[in-house]
Amino acid sequence: MIERRIKKLQNKIEETKAEAVIIFSASDIGYFTGVGDIEGVLVVSAKNERKLFVSPLYETAASELPKNELEVSINGIKDVTDYLKQEGIHKIGLDFLETKMNISNEFAGFEIIDFTNQTKMIRMIKEKEEINSIKRSAIFARNAFLKVYPYIKAGITEKEIADELTYQIRKAGAQKESFETIVASGANAAIPHHTPTDKKIEDGEFLVIDFGANKDGYNSDNTLTFLIGEKDDEKKKLFNAVFYAQLFATEMIAPGRTKASDVEKRARSELGKYNLDKYFIHSLGHGVGLDVHEFPYINLKNDMVIQPGMVFTIEPGIYIPGELGIRLEHMVLAKENDTEVIAFTPFMEIM
Amino acid sequence: MIERRIKKLQNKIEETKAEAVIIFSASDIGYFTGVGDIEGVLVVSAKNERKLFVSPLYETAASELPKNELEVSINGIKDVTDYLKQEGIHKIGLDFLETKMNISNEFAGFEIIDFTNQTKMIRMIKEKEEINSIKRSAIFARNAFLKVYPYIKAGITEKEIADELTYQIRKAGAQKESFETIVASGANAAIPHHTPTDKKIEDGEFLVIDFGANKDGYNSDNTLTFLIGEKDDEKKKLFNAVFYAQLFATEMIAPGRTKASDVEKRARSELGKYNLDKYFIHSLGHGVGLDVHEFPYINLKNDMVIQPGMVFTIEPGIYIPGELGIRLEHMVLAKENDTEVIAFTPFMEIM
Repeated sequence: MIERRIKKLQNKIEETKAEAVIIFSASDIGYFTGVGDIEGVLVVSAKNERKLFVSPLYETAASELPKNELEVSINGIKDVTDYLKQEGIHKIGLDFLETKMNISNEFAGFEIIDFTNQTKMIRMIKEKEEINSIKRSAIFARNAFLKVYPYIKAGITEKEIADELTYQIRKAGAQKESFETIVASGANAAIPHHTPTDKKIEDGEFLVIDFGANKDGYNSDNTLTFLIGEKDDEKKKLFNAVFYAQLFATEMIAPGRTKASDVEKRARSELGKYNLDKYFIHSLGHGVGLDVHEFPYINLKNDMVIQPGMVFTIEPGIYIPGELGIRLEHMVLAKENDTEVIAFTPFMEIM
Repeated sequence: MIERRIKKLQNKIEETKAEAVIIFSASDIGYFTGVGDIEGVLVVSAKNERKLFVSPLYETAASELPKNELEVSINGIKDVTDYLKQEGIHKIGLDFLETKMNISNEFAGFEIIDFTNQTKMIRMIKEKEEINSIKRSAIFARNAFLKVYPYIKAGITEKEIADELTYQIRKAGAQKESFETIVASGANAAIPHHTPTDKKIEDGEFLVIDFGANKDGYNSDNTLTFLIGEKDDEKKKLFNAVFYAQLFATEMIAPGRTKASDVEKRARSELGKYNLDKYFIHSLGHGVGLDVHEFPYINLKNDMVIQPGMVFTIEPGIYIPGELGIRLEHMVLAKENDTEVIAFTPFMEIM
């Protein structure tokens, strides 16, 4: 499995004419070595020589690697540049989004090749085992939510729900949550990345819960919205607009043919029918895998065609400042001829 | 409070002869604006004009700022460079450790001034309110631990302890844990950054628990080590070596006079008496504040003198691969004439 991934990386290295790539991202390192949860620097050369540099802190964690592929480094990036010089490597590929200036400055004298997003392009198409891992994480998250659901009602605070859900995600079998669980009610729900507070949930409010589980590095990401207490017709209409935006955007996807940008357009046109698209202040979705946000991004600027093996969210939302917010997010797997919603959560209390 | 911080920043800007600094670190932005938990870009000019650029996602969260200091930006870094050009700003300060290559490339044409670590030097000396915040976080963490302590015995798994402690940290009043709680037993404890597993704790093993709480952005960081079951004399000796290394390193600190490097030397010389210093594979400590790891770093290379207002960990450890690990970590506040251990945890079961 790792060999197949490295092969793809070799092809990218050849394409960019680099002599080696230097990888800093922990999720990339996990993907290309099988050693997760560490900090280090991975060098893969065009000749397929590999070397993972780690501090002594991570020596034991990385000890499953063959001895000649592991270098316990105490001088940081200098050990990497020394190695490159010794190997006669001069043209190095760097992902500019993953390389900080203090590091790039250390590569003065080397020829730097733009390797930005190349590893993300590889990781974008998931292997069968990866899809299973994402599904498993999504099921842990769903199971955790089912434990917490009975307690959700007026009077409980945002933070109580978030703390309990986070705990249940771990108890369900996940290593940890994919990101800080978001629980936002009433006007707070108008803040997409709201940090849960001690505010009590009240009847008549929308409640947004955005949560995910991580196991073996693979994440899930889902958002549910509830209307607490009696259902008001005006609020139902708002909810349904978001629901149909999600539904139609998801249903239009034909793997191999549909552009990411068109999927967001579809969601926006649905919200536009009710003049709500101006309240949809973020993009429609993002890939999910070893990172919670990764390729492919589903937004108006991205004309990439959705391909089989991609896993990404579809998450339209509306945010009316000072009033309310609604977001519905599910994960979609693109297959050969159609799509599948991962760990579909049957919560549709409002319609 | 913010004004006093900005004043210090202005002094640094003057020293470095930059016309403005561009700040990307979320904790720096929180420190210099009072708006925490957001992603954005903060520009502070030598003339003390300030502008925080955020995506629409964070507009509501940042809305407490004066209107003329907030810019809702949809074009990312380009909005920042346009603003700088419009203001006639050419010499910009960047922290190379916080600036990625894709961003620094956008500043082509500007004169880049090295502003690395300047904000960290300011944040290194804590204000009274910050010290109180750190103490409060440490007390939340301690209270959480006291809830979990009665359940720690042979048969419980590492992950069960970690999940429960994480939950109790939040229930105690913290927003979240400062970092993923580490629970490591037996041979796993030889891995300093071990991820908790389903391994059961057994009698005769050392159990290392490294945990912290975060509230209003401020972190705590403590590590306890227990010997489970009957206390073996050899193991007691190992524990005591680490305990005395921590004690003597802490006691030697005279604020205004002691160098950070000498503090680590003291810990190492104590471990050296038992030939254990070779197993101490990391540095002695690090500052704690809005980041879990920040200035000052307590290591052999840092000759910085410990100053009143600094808060940092003292955490010697020994790690014998395949066998065991021991780490003891507390947080020390340097005061005018002496030091104080923050939220001292009275766990000393082994001696």
